[in-house]
Amino acid sequence: MAQFVQSCLGVSGSGHLTIGGVDVMDIAAGYGTPCYVMDEAVIRSRMRLYDKAFADFSPNGGGALFASKACCFKAMYRIAAEEGLFGADAVSPGELWTAKAAGFPMERIYFHGNNKTDADLRLALDLGVGTIVADSREELGALSAAAGEYRKKQHILLRITPGVDPHTHKKIITGSVDSKFGSPISTGAALDIVEYALSLPNIVLDGFHCHIGSQIFDASPFIDAADIMVRFIADVKEKTGYEASKLDLGGGFGVRYTSDDPEFDYRGGVRSLCDAVRERCSELGVAAPVLMLEPGRSIVADAGITLYTVGSVKEIPGFRTYVSIDGGMPDNPRYALYQSVYEIFKADDPLGEKTACVTLGGRCCESGDLIGENMPIQPVKRGDIIAVAVTGAYNYSMASNYNRIPRPPVVMVSGGKTYEAVRRESCDDLIRLDV
Amino acid sequence: MAQFVQSCLGVSGSGHLTIGGVDVMDIAAGYGTPCYVMDEAVIRSRMRLYDKAFADFSPNGGGALFASKACCFKAMYRIAAEEGLFGADAVSPGELWTAKAAGFPMERIYFHGNNKTDADLRLALDLGVGTIVADSREELGALSAAAGEYRKKQHILLRITPGVDPHTHKKIITGSVDSKFGSPISTGAALDIVEYALSLPNIVLDGFHCHIGSQIFDASPFIDAADIMVRFIADVKEKTGYEASKLDLGGGFGVRYTSDDPEFDYRGGVRSLCDAVRERCSELGVAAPVLMLEPGRSIVADAGITLYTVGSVKEIPGFRTYVSIDGGMPDNPRYALYQSVYEIFKADDPLGEKTACVTLGGRCCESGDLIGENMPIQPVKRGDIIAVAVTGAYNYSMASNYNRIPRPPVVMVSGGKTYEAVRRESCDDLIRLDV
Repeated sequence: MAQFVQSCLGVSGSGHLTIGGVDVMDIAAGYGTPCYVMDEAVIRSRMRLYDKAFADFSPNGGGALFASKACCFKAMYRIAAEEGLFGADAVSPGELWTAKAAGFPMERIYFHGNNKTDADLRLALDLGVGTIVADSREELGALSAAAGEYRKKQHILLRITPGVDPHTHKKIITGSVDSKFGSPISTGAALDIVEYALSLPNIVLDGFHCHIGSQIFDASPFIDAADIMVRFIADVKEKTGYEASKLDLGGGFGVRYTSDDPEFDYRGGVRSLCDAVRERCSELGVAAPVLMLEPGRSIVADAGITLYTVGSVKEIPGFRTYVSIDGGMPDNPRYALYQSVYEIFKADDPLGEKTACVTLGGRCCESGDLIGENMPIQPVKRGDIIAVAVTGAYNYSMASNYNRIPRPPVVMVSGGKTYEAVRRESCDDLIRLDV
Repeated sequence: MAQFVQSCLGVSGSGHLTIGGVDVMDIAAGYGTPCYVMDEAVIRSRMRLYDKAFADFSPNGGGALFASKACCFKAMYRIAAEEGLFGADAVSPGELWTAKAAGFPMERIYFHGNNKTDADLRLALDLGVGTIVADSREELGALSAAAGEYRKKQHILLRITPGVDPHTHKKIITGSVDSKFGSPISTGAALDIVEYALSLPNIVLDGFHCHIGSQIFDASPFIDAADIMVRFIADVKEKTGYEASKLDLGGGFGVRYTSDDPEFDYRGGVRSLCDAVRERCSELGVAAPVLMLEPGRSIVADAGITLYTVGSVKEIPGFRTYVSIDGGMPDNPRYALYQSVYEIFKADDPLGEKTACVTLGGRCCESGDLIGENMPIQPVKRGDIIAVAVTGAYNYSMASNYNRIPRPPVVMVSGGKTYEAVRRESCDDLIRLDV
């Protein structure tokens, strides 16, 4: 369907929007709105695509670590485990806990974060997390001490800042030198922290990690980063004798949110990276490392949509038309935070002519609570269902209870059927921790 | 203490920061971090201040409706009920549910929102909500129909847009004509909706509501709004014969977040408003309405602080120093959303010289996860406790589980003692709704 950016969307015989072949009007009727809906088949096929690309092109193996922060709940880890995904990137005790509860193999977890507390490090040691991606000297010291108490040698990667500017949104650039993450190569901090890590008794340094940003539609900044990281591996080898065996190049491949976004060939991107690493390693005389990427958004974003019910339509002559829905920034804060752009559809007539142009307002008592502005859509009225496209990433995972609004369920579509992956929050849930 | 914007902060004999007379180092040790801490005495005295000001100055009574969205949990409604507060403004089923569970009198609830669903309206009718602040024609129709089924006459106010620009942050301007809220006077929509409300069988129109914005340090835009609203009351009276008996002028009095913010005299603000309304009513020959304001931020913001533990300190030569803490945008998204400015202190040495200037980074895997930039503070290292000042409003209430991070508890200080108003979320809480 050329009308939809998402391959999982279609139109039923009665002209309704479908996801994974299921009529979204039935989902809205059965589960209520607001409601996140995700197509399991997209998630699974994207996981396979990544691991297959690494199997086909990496000079020394590797694969994808699912970036849990994009969309984290137990069913997601079950899917990843069933697919035999290379691993998962977790960034908090909550993500570790969720992965463990879902039965995801802990030895395939890479535990990230610029600030792991002592309690976090102990939890990781308790759970048997395979690899900790250490970010700072303080963390290394605390980790080595804690690992000693556990009589463990903890495998780690070190987060390194390559100094690559991928020309994306300021808030999601993470690989430049001025970053809260990692240790920059250019200032000498990266070499220092490698030497410090190598000096610690209870740590096994497996290699390096970097992350240059998000929503990048061009393989070249990744190739630049890979190039810098392989040079760093060679430099470290020369200066310390230590040769890294793993290289994790982070996440950031772009996702098409609208038809204005370019298409990106994920398999081709992995291939370019792998080729660049092979070539550079051979040139510099270092062994090709096990290669990893951390796709999150590009695995789940276009697997998902959100369904809302229209509450009111206000035409303000000379200004604009506001359509108010029964969700908003509590379930999708991305417009408020990043001015993210979405496409929307009247769910029972997604191919109808989009003769309206609206501001889609949430239900919060806050003017900034919008899903978007200047959005073309079919004419709607109170009671109609609206689908917001490409909301599988950073919607459920960023959801709040702002305005004390319960969070929507996550309904998963699989094989033409639906199941709840996350149940709808109730008002009683909201007051459960109130004393 | 001239050093602190918040009257509830002080310094103990051992030089530690105190809130409500309690050493925050003891609170951090007892409850862990991150941790919201609030001083009940500030909340209570601010509630009394508002109701007293209305009692003293309003020509026909009235008082404050606590804007729940600023900080909503059961203990807050218990405090408001104990203080005999005039009422509370609730904006969602979750806020209604919380107020009910806390025993707040439902007849003193004003139920707001630009998009109340049919289920919301039924819940309000079930719970016996005193007043619904209706926002749109669609809502009025749905409400009248539902009230009919309940054989009730539902009291309402109508939300009207006065067209006042209070020169505040764009995202928190709500009284201009181009708004998702209410019906503008200037386009004729306001008069139309009054006539529609008066025509409906199961609705009792008590008067009008408007809201011009937030963080306003000048009474004059409120006086402008009051002026416009009294003129509207007179105009409606002339054209329809209906005379409003209540006027709710919304929230928006400013709060000092830092010493750069001006001071604002809340009692004086109420007095100016009341005087303006009395004068205009007498001039236009309409009865002075019962007057209300909806303070939220100005009741709770400077009652609260947040305590964090430092995880790492990274000096990036030529750029800046990042201090990473164990919280961030999940518990305080206001810098990410609005670039809000906060003052911070090393909790065990708040009067020490602030020789450092840091970027306070949260623990999320996101570059935009900052509490602030260019923040003066005493030198800190891993393990130190940092207090962020004036976080009582729109912190707990906006908190998310982004990065699957559990939400902090709310610890209330009262009479030199502490109690948990909201318990800390656990990792098990996070997966409770996962299937």
